[in-house]
Amino acid sequence: MTPTSVLDADRLRARVQQALDDVLAHQRTVLTEVDPDCAPLVESVSRLVAGGKRLRPAFCYWGWRGAGGGADGGSSSADAESDAVVRAAAALELFQAAALIHDDVMDASDTRRGMPAVHRQFAALHRGSGWQGDAEHFGAAGAILAGDLCLSWSDEVLNGAGLTDDALVRAKAVFDRMRTQLMGGQYLDMLAQAMPVVAGARSATDGATGCEHGGETDEALARALRVICFKSAKYTVEHPLLLGAALAGASPELVAAYSSYGLPLGEAFQLRDDVLGVFGDPAQTGKPAGDDLREGKRTVLVALALQRATPAQADAVRRLLGDPGLGESGVVTLREVVVDTGALDRVEAMIDDGVRRSREALAAAPVEESARAVLEGLVEAATARAA
Amino acid sequence: MTPTSVLDADRLRARVQQALDDVLAHQRTVLTEVDPDCAPLVESVSRLVAGGKRLRPAFCYWGWRGAGGGADGGSSSADAESDAVVRAAAALELFQAAALIHDDVMDASDTRRGMPAVHRQFAALHRGSGWQGDAEHFGAAGAILAGDLCLSWSDEVLNGAGLTDDALVRAKAVFDRMRTQLMGGQYLDMLAQAMPVVAGARSATDGATGCEHGGETDEALARALRVICFKSAKYTVEHPLLLGAALAGASPELVAAYSSYGLPLGEAFQLRDDVLGVFGDPAQTGKPAGDDLREGKRTVLVALALQRATPAQADAVRRLLGDPGLGESGVVTLREVVVDTGALDRVEAMIDDGVRRSREALAAAPVEESARAVLEGLVEAATARAA
Repeated sequence: MTPTSVLDADRLRARVQQALDDVLAHQRTVLTEVDPDCAPLVESVSRLVAGGKRLRPAFCYWGWRGAGGGADGGSSSADAESDAVVRAAAALELFQAAALIHDDVMDASDTRRGMPAVHRQFAALHRGSGWQGDAEHFGAAGAILAGDLCLSWSDEVLNGAGLTDDALVRAKAVFDRMRTQLMGGQYLDMLAQAMPVVAGARSATDGATGCEHGGETDEALARALRVICFKSAKYTVEHPLLLGAALAGASPELVAAYSSYGLPLGEAFQLRDDVLGVFGDPAQTGKPAGDDLREGKRTVLVALALQRATPAQADAVRRLLGDPGLGESGVVTLREVVVDTGALDRVEAMIDDGVRRSREALAAAPVEESARAVLEGLVEAATARAA
Repeated sequence: MTPTSVLDADRLRARVQQALDDVLAHQRTVLTEVDPDCAPLVESVSRLVAGGKRLRPAFCYWGWRGAGGGADGGSSSADAESDAVVRAAAALELFQAAALIHDDVMDASDTRRGMPAVHRQFAALHRGSGWQGDAEHFGAAGAILAGDLCLSWSDEVLNGAGLTDDALVRAKAVFDRMRTQLMGGQYLDMLAQAMPVVAGARSATDGATGCEHGGETDEALARALRVICFKSAKYTVEHPLLLGAALAGASPELVAAYSSYGLPLGEAFQLRDDVLGVFGDPAQTGKPAGDDLREGKRTVLVALALQRATPAQADAVRRLLGDPGLGESGVVTLREVVVDTGALDRVEAMIDDGVRRSREALAAAPVEESARAVLEGLVEAATARAA
């Protein structure tokens, strides 16, 4: 299957979009009953959730299918259950919208999915209306509220998805752990960016994560890998799979197999995203070239470059990384450091390794055969060099 | 009953605190498994939710008791149900914590409940650790995450409260409407503060709210009343009562009576809070004197002062209101305008009127007699001049 056909199998993307449209139409009514002036809150969310790969819904839905969900497809009760699972998957997209909206405020990012970030949209509304006070501050406040609404709505959608009581209780346990762990991971990411750029220090964070690379002794690298584990490997792949497994009441063996398939894949997904954040085409990433460098993201790529850097290279990183005014020549310099230190090759090897381990785990997993091909295809869809 | 004994009837405050302590102990474990460095997220929330009047839990719990909940108190099943309602009431406190943490970021408030606001706590952590980057920005980001966690946890507590499936479904409907309406009300509040200080303009917002003063034709006053309706009257009093009613499966007659009792009381509660925000003792409010004036809050008190101001008085308001550096003499000047225009007397009359209407509605309401005295006492507890 091509990556696109995998994502559209069972018409998943169209059905998720429909579920999101239904939620947002309802919430627009609730908000504009408060006041018609509240409409921009729902409009900013609608723009953000239009389109995308829908990777999290795909892992959730195919996690459910792989655990035997929807096996009697075509019967009316099976179709109703499938639609309920699609709504639960849409709840993941609304939660992700909240995370993106708030992350962009925290990172002061300008752009998201090729559009102005939500806080920039509210700042522009403020300026265009000639209101008083600071437009940027108004923008951040509007985005905080829009994200809060998405958090509430995601929970509302999951609860109202039409799941059985038992399935909902199982799903909520995964959803709750996912939410708290993601926010913990985001806080770690903030800490990593606030700490001085050093390499080679002994790791202070050595608790088990379930992810593969827990034993690193370089502190910057260990921190970057820990952030990836919670912000990507678990959040983007493992937890959606486990949500699908919970919806189907999967066996402990399948749950364990999903973790073995999902965690290395999720790590590879984020490493690919990190490479694209430095080397990617803006038309593909929806962000300006080198945006991760300008924001000073402490990725594994950067940690590896620092670990292997000459003093002159390390100095260039310290000087340029996180400079909000970083121009094209600075981006080129940093890219050269990433290439010349061998960090890029190392990360590509890590991606290959993660993909291999993920495929091996899937091959051994007791998944329903009808879902196996799609789960195989999702490995490629999540880690491909081109979108 | 004295206001304090009302709030402590059925040991409610101690039981709510215990429920919050249990939640936060659990979430500390989840977060520190991500990384021990995540502990400040839960510590900042613990400090914020310690103490307070617990008005929202009181309206929820006594709304449930007034609808016949806990009538067979002493039996083990009734005690278990009562504890489940206390946990649902604790969910309201966690939601309120989220609203306060995010509001303080949006309003750039320094102080909350006599302590540094959560974003100031994270900024202080950044400074004390000698991290790089902007401490204020780090503080705002930490507070956004802490608030997001409170939103997730409040939902998790409600779902895991131990309610019956039917009671939970009814409760969630109220909870969902409450969340979206509060956030809409907060956005309206932001808009009101961003719009130029004018009075006497024709109201553009004339949709029905359910609150009493929907028909104002002065735009600034109409907006301030609309904000009060959604941010206070519904959120602080009516929705908690309706949550309690939903938990008990109350009759439509009692639900309507709770709205008639709760909406004027909630408006009076906020008007009292507005008066305290201008004239209150910092030891009582937990905020510096005149803090609402410094933040430029567009309260009903301010709208009425502007409506009745001479050109010189209106000029003083435009010049001083919302000045971050507003000193004691500016506070005194603005207080004089509020008194001399008769705005203070008018607001005190509105409070008296709301209290009277609330008491009349309660007297006619079909509530359980065992709860009536406490619901009567809550009128005083919510609107008293001293805490």
